[in-house]
Amino acid sequence: MTKGTLAVLINSTQQNWLPARWKTRFEAVCGGRRVVLLPDAGLDPAEVHYAAVWKPAPGELAAFVNLRAIFNLGAGVDALMADRSLPDVPLVRVAVPDLTNRMTEYVVLHVLMHHRQELYLRQSQREKSWEPKYQWPASAVTVGVMGLGTLGADAAGVLRRLGFRVAGWSRSPRAVEGVECFHGTAQIDAFLNATDILVCLLPLTPDTQGILNRDVFTKLNRKSPLGAPVLINAGRGGLQNEADILSCLDDGTLGAVSLDVFVQEPLPQDSRLWTHPKVVLTPHNAADTDAEAISAYVAEQIARFEAGSALENVVDRARGY
Amino acid sequence: MTKGTLAVLINSTQQNWLPARWKTRFEAVCGGRRVVLLPDAGLDPAEVHYAAVWKPAPGELAAFVNLRAIFNLGAGVDALMADRSLPDVPLVRVAVPDLTNRMTEYVVLHVLMHHRQELYLRQSQREKSWEPKYQWPASAVTVGVMGLGTLGADAAGVLRRLGFRVAGWSRSPRAVEGVECFHGTAQIDAFLNATDILVCLLPLTPDTQGILNRDVFTKLNRKSPLGAPVLINAGRGGLQNEADILSCLDDGTLGAVSLDVFVQEPLPQDSRLWTHPKVVLTPHNAADTDAEAISAYVAEQIARFEAGSALENVVDRARGY
Ligand SMILES: NC(=O)c1ccc[n+]([C@@H]2O[C@H](COP(=O)([O-])OP(=O)(O)OC[C@H]3O[C@@H](n4cnc5c(N)ncnc54)[C@H](OP(=O)(O)O)[C@@H]3O)[C@@H](O)[C@H]2O)c1
Ligand SMILES: NC(=O)c1ccc[n+]([C@@H]2O[C@H](COP(=O)([O-])OP(=O)(O)OC[C@H]3O[C@@H](n4cnc5c(N)ncnc54)[C@H](OP(=O)(O)O)[C@@H]3O)[C@@H](O)[C@H]2O)c1
Repeated sequence: MTKGTLAVLINSTQQNWLPARWKTRFEAVCGGRRVVLLPDAGLDPAEVHYAAVWKPAPGELAAFVNLRAIFNLGAGVDALMADRSLPDVPLVRVAVPDLTNRMTEYVVLHVLMHHRQELYLRQSQREKSWEPKYQWPASAVTVGVMGLGTLGADAAGVLRRLGFRVAGWSRSPRAVEGVECFHGTAQIDAFLNATDILVCLLPLTPDTQGILNRDVFTKLNRKSPLGAPVLINAGRGGLQNEADILSCLDDGTLGAVSLDVFVQEPLPQDSRLWTHPKVVLTPHNAADTDAEAISAYVAEQIARFEAGSALENVVDRARGY
Repeated sequence: MTKGTLAVLINSTQQNWLPARWKTRFEAVCGGRRVVLLPDAGLDPAEVHYAAVWKPAPGELAAFVNLRAIFNLGAGVDALMADRSLPDVPLVRVAVPDLTNRMTEYVVLHVLMHHRQELYLRQSQREKSWEPKYQWPASAVTVGVMGLGTLGADAAGVLRRLGFRVAGWSRSPRAVEGVECFHGTAQIDAFLNATDILVCLLPLTPDTQGILNRDVFTKLNRKSPLGAPVLINAGRGGLQNEADILSCLDDGTLGAVSLDVFVQEPLPQDSRLWTHPKVVLTPHNAADTDAEAISAYVAEQIARFEAGSALENVVDRARGY
């Protein structure tokens, strides 16, 4: 196959998304391939064979009639799925160890923060109070991981190593060593009943939209050693019902939450999530995009594709992830 | 060997040290062995063959002339070492998976808190500021573990799994998979120079007393991705110079610290460590003592000893640990 042109389209003003820097990076790893930065007024759209994109506006890729593949520069493709005019070519998502490692760091950190009573201990420090409370071992706690894909399976492995009991839930049956696996809507209640700390690493799809709601929280283990169950969501904001989260924190259905993602980002100033004493929030940085790792991944995918191999991590458009 | 009597001596008012509960536990696991609780006015000291102790006062064990072994109910024996009248019989310390797991939880939690900029992120939440900063990967950070014993080696393994570079330092040469090992005073500078996050899991001995001081902090990696190096001490308070820690935090020699142990415990109300914004403190609960796990361990050690096998984890009194 001829060496196609790669167009880079980035709609972000964040520091790690500087378009010019990504173009330079792609040139460095693409071995002489032509790399263009969009928008480019002088460019004939027919010349573009690959698109590497971050948050393209709906319709922004429709003109590229000779596209062979689209590379989303992150793991979640929910925003792209909403674009009805997206060219019908393979859509590849990111699955690289760098991103996976970062997400596992986030998950392990937040599971341990809740398990080890960090909210209480920080308050004790502020009050100069030396009052250690009973600390249960990790073996008394079940972490339930929703989504046993690239990210969920890796985090589950480290949680096991730390001594937690780990349950997992996916759409299709999965086997992950040491993890009690559940799947599908038929088994979700059993999964939730066993869970003390619920970690959500699902993609946002029509099936998962709003799944983190009062109904689900009520089914978590009511006899958790933590007092009340905990939610950690690092998937997408659209998975969570924020009014339910707040009311469940207020009435004790949930003991605490860590949220990295929100229905609207940045989180609006008037959201009560900012100030709720049981909420630990981070600005959607659970697993930052690393230009080095991801440009190398895209370059490798294109090279193997042009050499006749199949692309990896292609999104199933019917499933939406 | 005859089935000896076990005396239990606990000087603590903390919740998990209730002497009566320990006696009941020991009776449950010691299979018919006589278990007595000290002090016991009617007891003939010559009847006691084993002592299971927590914080005995100096001299409190001297009268037990027929002791065969002393079991310290924690991992650190520094307090016992100071007792000149301690009977000259094997002194056994605790090394059980339950305790090791708990310490690894603590170390991993605090390494990740500093690595993932938790102090900054909590402040951002308080200020309702959505300003993620650049996040380096774990592979850019070297965690230096002082003390590669039961606890240090286990924590090092999980830190490796999380992608950190790990260095270790011990008295004698050690080999831990994936860990760059240094030993002795001759190699301490090379170890410190490589270290971004210093984790101290040393025992307190005449050689290690006050080792966490300005001289050592100054030798840590000055080009740390964290901005400035970080100290985490979960060994003993006597290892650290608290005035040096505070002045090194104030002048930027250290970027932040997590301390679980203090020269005086509970930490005095007027210590500036309580309120310093770069200090994360916990009330000496990094690895709580679990009566179930530890009584079973002591019972097993006594049984194997009476069956003719050697005791495990016997303290070398010359080394002091
Ligand atoms: N916060 C951040 O910084 C950040 C960074 C990166 C990614 N993310 C999010 O993390 C998500 C997961 O990434 P990944 O790489 O692990 O994805 P992945 O490999 O595609 O795995 C997705 C998992 O979710 C399961 N799943 C999907 N729909 C389901 C349903 N309706 N019911 C039950 N299970 C369902 C899948 O089940 P099967 O195994 O049966 O397919 C799979 O196990 C991304 O989509 C993205 O939204 C967030
Ligand atoms: N905060 C808490 O809740 C808590 C709980 C439990 C334990 N602790 C503390 O943790 C300490 C370590 O426990 P452990 O079970 O891991 O002990 P361990 O198995 O005896 O290991 C001690 C390690 O420290 C090294 N070391 C000792 N003296 C040294 C010196 N002068 N220079 C360099 N290295 C030296 C030893 O070197 P070698 O390998 O050459 O012998 C060994 O690697 C305990 O002594 C206790 O004080 C704290």
